[in-house]
Amino acid sequence: MRQTDLLEPEDTALAALSDAFGDKLVLSEAARAQHAGLEGHHTGGLPDAVLMAASRDDVVAAVDLCARNGLAIVPHGAGTSLEGHLSAVRGGLSIDLTAMDRILEIDPQNMLCRVEPGVTREQLNLALRDHGLFFPIDPGANASLGGMAATRASGTNAVLYGTMRDNVLSLEVVTAQGRVIETGTRAKKSSAGYDLTGLFVGSEGTLGVITAVTLRLHGIPQAILAGTVAFDDISDAVRAVIQAIQFGLPVARIELLDEAQIRACNAFSKLDLAERPTLFLEFHGTDDGVAEQAALFGEIARELGGGELETALRTEDRTRLWKARHDAYFAAKALRPGAKVWTTDVCVPIASLAESIAATRADIDESGALATIVGHVGDGNYHVLFVLDPNAPEDRDVAAGINERMVARAIRLGGTCTGEHGVGIGKRQCLLDERGADAVALMATLKHALDPAGMFNPGKIFL
Amino acid sequence: MRQTDLLEPEDTALAALSDAFGDKLVLSEAARAQHAGLEGHHTGGLPDAVLMAASRDDVVAAVDLCARNGLAIVPHGAGTSLEGHLSAVRGGLSIDLTAMDRILEIDPQNMLCRVEPGVTREQLNLALRDHGLFFPIDPGANASLGGMAATRASGTNAVLYGTMRDNVLSLEVVTAQGRVIETGTRAKKSSAGYDLTGLFVGSEGTLGVITAVTLRLHGIPQAILAGTVAFDDISDAVRAVIQAIQFGLPVARIELLDEAQIRACNAFSKLDLAERPTLFLEFHGTDDGVAEQAALFGEIARELGGGELETALRTEDRTRLWKARHDAYFAAKALRPGAKVWTTDVCVPIASLAESIAATRADIDESGALATIVGHVGDGNYHVLFVLDPNAPEDRDVAAGINERMVARAIRLGGTCTGEHGVGIGKRQCLLDERGADAVALMATLKHALDPAGMFNPGKIFL
Repeated sequence: MRQTDLLEPEDTALAALSDAFGDKLVLSEAARAQHAGLEGHHTGGLPDAVLMAASRDDVVAAVDLCARNGLAIVPHGAGTSLEGHLSAVRGGLSIDLTAMDRILEIDPQNMLCRVEPGVTREQLNLALRDHGLFFPIDPGANASLGGMAATRASGTNAVLYGTMRDNVLSLEVVTAQGRVIETGTRAKKSSAGYDLTGLFVGSEGTLGVITAVTLRLHGIPQAILAGTVAFDDISDAVRAVIQAIQFGLPVARIELLDEAQIRACNAFSKLDLAERPTLFLEFHGTDDGVAEQAALFGEIARELGGGELETALRTEDRTRLWKARHDAYFAAKALRPGAKVWTTDVCVPIASLAESIAATRADIDESGALATIVGHVGDGNYHVLFVLDPNAPEDRDVAAGINERMVARAIRLGGTCTGEHGVGIGKRQCLLDERGADAVALMATLKHALDPAGMFNPGKIFL
Repeated sequence: MRQTDLLEPEDTALAALSDAFGDKLVLSEAARAQHAGLEGHHTGGLPDAVLMAASRDDVVAAVDLCARNGLAIVPHGAGTSLEGHLSAVRGGLSIDLTAMDRILEIDPQNMLCRVEPGVTREQLNLALRDHGLFFPIDPGANASLGGMAATRASGTNAVLYGTMRDNVLSLEVVTAQGRVIETGTRAKKSSAGYDLTGLFVGSEGTLGVITAVTLRLHGIPQAILAGTVAFDDISDAVRAVIQAIQFGLPVARIELLDEAQIRACNAFSKLDLAERPTLFLEFHGTDDGVAEQAALFGEIARELGGGELETALRTEDRTRLWKARHDAYFAAKALRPGAKVWTTDVCVPIASLAESIAATRADIDESGALATIVGHVGDGNYHVLFVLDPNAPEDRDVAAGINERMVARAIRLGGTCTGEHGVGIGKRQCLLDERGADAVALMATLKHALDPAGMFNPGKIFL
């Protein structure tokens, strides 16, 4: 007697998957818990099983089996998303794509590459270095490129190089019908039909499974100059950013860390920065170009009461600075032993950024919450990192209130409830508040048309 | 007795439209012929009526009436599209949006504006000039911004500033259900839900009617330097472009005109350019910056056997040069009295551009066709302008063969069948050849989901 004969329908599906995939299908509690999206502040839902996919064919076969058996699918990359995207709210199969980590092609002549979805941005940049090229999108975490495409990631370099929206040329996607499509071409631009690449970038795993990514690359700049400048007042720091952007200064990175975050970074990364709101900057260009840009920015900062722009040209100094910036999350977390960090983000039109950040910082202080502000301020995008005491459930309610008011203000200012983290579970009501019922209904119509059974990543984006 | 009592169902629909819109509904043969997409080489289909829409409310009411009466709708801007987009293949209502030409808002602080769809790019740039801002997308014709969004237009400045895909922040759209949605926000980036803006940009009027456009603006550069450089060989000219792009030279415009086109321009625009393949360039930046860029490009050109880079800093010289470039279509048309011009375009990965253009030029010459080549070569995008003798029907067949082979080659090189003109009627088979049946079927699924009755611009994009 086969084992399947005694099983429930769902178990039958798992048995079928097990038959098809053997050791690649993992059913252990530990593996399922690792794939439940427990990072971040959302409650995770455990998948029934995890498939360690090794190839596109694995994904096609899994989609086919899940479709026939009514099993949900949650595509899973490096697991660094922040809005509960990976939670298997309806159980089903987590398709782990991290083993699909081959760089399929680097084409320096056309400044593009094609990678499997599990390739991480650090892995890619290491491989690109000898070609004098790099991939600029840097959300901080060492995310997978498939995941970054799925969440429309951006990060510190987006002010100059754009987001995943601008740097994905094409995706290979397995659809709900188990077909493999290519969403674009290798041409720099195209007006051939609907922009399927744009539709799948940012669709958060709800429309299909990404199995390959074609990316636009950029030349490593001849010169890179990093710098920091501190301000007494956070609004003055933001005003300096606004002026630089309005002036058209082609700054590559312009990050704000508020006083609380600088304090956290000093402690965590053994730095001795002045504990004041501080901008971290980076200029890309020729030797003369970056010097000129830095001088111009220094002038703007001084006029707004900022300190001296302290620059770092040496790679190791730059690396140390940006490592501290990238560790901001862990530095905030270390502010409170055993803390959970809830990271949220909004993005507003640049001229409203000072107003938006000042109001949020005041709200945090009045609410007595422990939270830092970190921002990709050149884009009008910033984060609040709530440092929650897991033994004080009221902490979460206070944070929820601040987050709700921050999002409402961003929407009122013409902005968006999320600049780069996505909707996931956490921002579903915010999306409705921002776009209105008709626009979200139109998104739901698209979802239903491509995935009528609601197989792909259920419970995300839509309430 | 009311006039409607004696009429057929379609006439009843027209009578209902006439009742609702009065003088704004035009039924004359002349107006209908003007809205049949007769420009270009496609055969036009006459709409049954033309609505001169004055407001969003007009559009909503028209969509509602057409939906109830099963009438097709063809949205109509300045009428400069090239692939038969405006042909009313199923009759119905042409909604002329040119009277909706109000600039609703200019927001210099956030470097954005909001316009009605009938505003033309020249009208907008005139209004922006006093703010020190401009809108860079320039397809040549004085197209409407709604139409440019609908066809994902790009043109001469796209190499530096991107296409409509990159410069539309949000659209107001009337859907098939008569609902008014806003596809985006005013934030520079967002990851809130599916990219509806990206879906509607380039949808060629098949998913809804655009009633307002929010656009990203750019600062007028401090210095603009234009220049021309001629080559003996067209492949060397293209190789200079490839090298400049691979070097990362931030050139704002880089246009190729082949020998035949230069000859046409000299005659039409009273110029005395050497009759050789020539690049028209423009550099944007600071005084020093543009001089440095021009010097660098001059070096690249010389190394590849190009002539001297002849520069023009004065506005009137630049204007004369670019006017000639913009009049390339009319210059080609004037090569043969009474000629019809068929303009096609492809876009290939930059490293394959020389091969692509050389093969196409050779094919034209071997076929004995009268045709010029003009290209936005910095993007890998170029056009062939076939100058057809209307009394020699075989001209069209020869052109069709060259076009088919050019598209097939572009696809083989990883490129696209159209970089900026769109699919319309003319490139429907090419779209299938390029993306494959599954990807195009997915596009059709999206179309059917949003417009189940197939009301919007039928017969376009899909065979």
